[in-house]
Amino acid sequence: MTKTIDTTGKDRVIIFDTTLRDGEQSPGASMTLEEKIQVADLLDEMGVDVIEAGFPIASNGDFEAVSEIAKRVKRAVVCGLARASQNDIDRAAEALRHAERRRIHTFIGTSPLHRQYQLQLSTEQVYEKVIASVTRARSHTDDVEWSPMDATRTEHDFLCRVVEAAIKAGATTINIPDTVGYATPEEFRSLIAMLIARVPNADKAVFSTHCHDDLGMAVANSLGGLLGGARQIECTINGLGERAGNAALEEVVMAIRTRGDVLPFYTNVDASMLVRASKLVSSVSAFPVQYNKAIVGKNAFAHESGIHQDGVLKNAQTYEIMTPESVGLKESSLVMGKHSGRHAFREKLGELGFQLGDNAFEDAFRRFKDLADRKKHVFDEDIEALVEDEVATRSELIKVIALTVIAGTGGPQKAIITLDVDGRHETREATGNGPVDATFNAIKSIIPNKAKLSLFQVHAVTEGTDAQAEVSVRLEEDGKSVTARAADPDTLVSAAKAYVSAVNKLMTRRAKTAPAAVAEAG
Amino acid sequence: MTKTIDTTGKDRVIIFDTTLRDGEQSPGASMTLEEKIQVADLLDEMGVDVIEAGFPIASNGDFEAVSEIAKRVKRAVVCGLARASQNDIDRAAEALRHAERRRIHTFIGTSPLHRQYQLQLSTEQVYEKVIASVTRARSHTDDVEWSPMDATRTEHDFLCRVVEAAIKAGATTINIPDTVGYATPEEFRSLIAMLIARVPNADKAVFSTHCHDDLGMAVANSLGGLLGGARQIECTINGLGERAGNAALEEVVMAIRTRGDVLPFYTNVDASMLVRASKLVSSVSAFPVQYNKAIVGKNAFAHESGIHQDGVLKNAQTYEIMTPESVGLKESSLVMGKHSGRHAFREKLGELGFQLGDNAFEDAFRRFKDLADRKKHVFDEDIEALVEDEVATRSELIKVIALTVIAGTGGPQKAIITLDVDGRHETREATGNGPVDATFNAIKSIIPNKAKLSLFQVHAVTEGTDAQAEVSVRLEEDGKSVTARAADPDTLVSAAKAYVSAVNKLMTRRAKTAPAAVAEAG
Repeated sequence: MTKTIDTTGKDRVIIFDTTLRDGEQSPGASMTLEEKIQVADLLDEMGVDVIEAGFPIASNGDFEAVSEIAKRVKRAVVCGLARASQNDIDRAAEALRHAERRRIHTFIGTSPLHRQYQLQLSTEQVYEKVIASVTRARSHTDDVEWSPMDATRTEHDFLCRVVEAAIKAGATTINIPDTVGYATPEEFRSLIAMLIARVPNADKAVFSTHCHDDLGMAVANSLGGLLGGARQIECTINGLGERAGNAALEEVVMAIRTRGDVLPFYTNVDASMLVRASKLVSSVSAFPVQYNKAIVGKNAFAHESGIHQDGVLKNAQTYEIMTPESVGLKESSLVMGKHSGRHAFREKLGELGFQLGDNAFEDAFRRFKDLADRKKHVFDEDIEALVEDEVATRSELIKVIALTVIAGTGGPQKAIITLDVDGRHETREATGNGPVDATFNAIKSIIPNKAKLSLFQVHAVTEGTDAQAEVSVRLEEDGKSVTARAADPDTLVSAAKAYVSAVNKLMTRRAKTAPAAVAEAG
Repeated sequence: MTKTIDTTGKDRVIIFDTTLRDGEQSPGASMTLEEKIQVADLLDEMGVDVIEAGFPIASNGDFEAVSEIAKRVKRAVVCGLARASQNDIDRAAEALRHAERRRIHTFIGTSPLHRQYQLQLSTEQVYEKVIASVTRARSHTDDVEWSPMDATRTEHDFLCRVVEAAIKAGATTINIPDTVGYATPEEFRSLIAMLIARVPNADKAVFSTHCHDDLGMAVANSLGGLLGGARQIECTINGLGERAGNAALEEVVMAIRTRGDVLPFYTNVDASMLVRASKLVSSVSAFPVQYNKAIVGKNAFAHESGIHQDGVLKNAQTYEIMTPESVGLKESSLVMGKHSGRHAFREKLGELGFQLGDNAFEDAFRRFKDLADRKKHVFDEDIEALVEDEVATRSELIKVIALTVIAGTGGPQKAIITLDVDGRHETREATGNGPVDATFNAIKSIIPNKAKLSLFQVHAVTEGTDAQAEVSVRLEEDGKSVTARAADPDTLVSAAKAYVSAVNKLMTRRAKTAPAAVAEAG
């Protein structure tokens, strides 16, 4: 491998984001195509080096997402995941066809547990598959990444043997996944160092980390990997991912940036976009970020105790090792109101990072004026919610036209709803246990469905009692789940819109052909 | 120090929980006395070794909490925090007077930044204060802990000097705080090892870690500390704490338990109570736990992708290093309904860990029957929410009697509310931007206040559209915040109750005398 070294002698670390693949595989975090594109655009703009956009053979939706993202992304390498089979690899290559720079990431389980129970293959059979799959991937692109799944529980001798074979067959990146989140930092550092020392052709590939957070050590393990010689970190925004998730991109980037003295590395990521990326991913996945989450949590830069406040006022360094501005945190600014015009609104959108086409802009502007009429202060977050809601609800079959609810302690609660179902208006009335139950019952009487409501969540988007309420709804049907969200100053209207949007997603999903296998590499 | 070694030759690690001190200092996480007692009881039952119950001099509320907890806790050592001053230390001793086993924890900033900017003291002055404060604490109890705040940024020579002086003055535990969450695991390990090697009387004290999570490495740093020779870890449930919080107790405990091969330690904590502790703390602090949080997140043991599900079905070890049962996760069981009687309800409460007095039991039972009438399935979580709501709303001045809301797209939304204000019923009507705004406006017309609503959040407690909705409301007044929550199948009734409960807390707070200094040691 050829190292990239900056003027201060620090090694460059490649940031490989897998929010759209491993992150999107989190139960309940599935995203629509539009949402994935929004995330990919932001990652590309932020300076992420590699975007793993999906697992093309897993579903037509995944294929389409990788393919669309491959077409638009300008700076980053776009990567698609594939198991150790010809079909998987060819399908990934097809999805990546239009990418400026493309990578195929192929993997196979190498630990005894995976060989015996999951794959039912001998070590020789696994070895042969490694060579065949990397060779096949190399026939499509020069940029091939290979991963031995469950590497941290694989015998060292066998691991060295397959890594050597993969590099010989043409793999340019060797990714070492701690699939079950089992390692400690010192162990992971030694594992990478052992591979680099023992594998004869190790200098021909970049070593990479893929750490899960089951024991809360994903970030420390990834950084341990760097100290052992790795120069790529696989991570996700907000640490999204299966089970306890992956190493959080924002923590990795800020640790490297803040502790350059003991971690002599740098990344190309623009840290000032981290908060925005966190908000976008939290919003499209409907996974709230906990207040005390490092870097991007609401409290990450908040000081309450007297001694801390006193210290911060005297010298911010007493309690802060990073500035809030360095990660893009700013006081929510009040600038827009009902007298703001098209020009001001377009400028504000640009400042917030939105580029809308003419129709979408007109739609958003109309909704903004609507909101400004109803709400005294329109904050940046209100506008973000409004535009993101716009992106999510466009192209939906069923829409909420009108809703009236009568609720309270007297009961039973009653809702009257009018929906536009493919152009036709239908009105129904229903009662329920609470106003939300009544509203959902009214919707279900128009569009019957057996989906189970597994999440119902309301967030105030901004402050004050007239804040917009963003509601997230997750529906489960046949073991699959969809999540949708909507924002409105009226919680019940948000709830109705979010529920209808989730039903729309379920209908789209049903219409798709869905192959059996959905998998992951780390 | 005398080591406690179990039959397998593993060293015992002392678990020092500071959820009620450092955790409760998180902006917005303040708890009532009843809530603190609930948490302390659970921590004690769970086998936590030391409970830091508060900072007695900081406020009368803190004093009262430490004092009450000192009286009830049976197994754990109860600890109170104090700055390096006679008043602080004496006040802590007074609060701890009735404890079976008591510890005073005193601290002072030792880094150049803290000495210069916060304390404006020379090294000699700091050194003298260390000796004076530890000596004073030792005059009250044999169990004294001392912390050099911002230790990770203190010069090694000076740090060794003050640690030696503190031990000589009688400190039995030396806690090394990474106050700004700055360290890496290797660095923290070396720091502890350096102190134990260089401080001549190091064998007379237990070394302790107190790591913050600003760079996402608090758990790895704490475990690094153990490898360096520390035998106490300071941590909090859910990683609650200032800014990005502290090392999460549940992650520390499970990492030690799962990786005994490379971490040859054990703790006394009953891991099967971790999920319950996490839920209780999340509920009383109104800090939601993110789905992908290690150990206790909703998704921590969830598998969505086909390959993972396939692997788990073939052999759970393929993707699981811990069982969900080991941390107390169980499928929510449907057992209670409207035909369940007092006996069954009392048994269920016991199973869920609640011991209620007769009056509280009758109240809870009445609410349970009420709920069972309105809701088809009553889940364990419903009962937990109901009992916790009961605990929170007892002894409140203002209560919600009745509410009617008319809402929807037609607007303006209207709410009519009746409140019981100290025995007197008042009814008012108000409009607003959305049903929640209308409801809150109606409440404010009865009890005028200028508090700012800084959080409004709704969670479904159980599944289904007739789930109970738990609403959290945070109000800010004069830079201080209070959080309250309430549960009801009707979101709007929950919202009204939570808002009223927050107003009750504000009024209680106003009534208290509040000394100027609130501080922290790590």
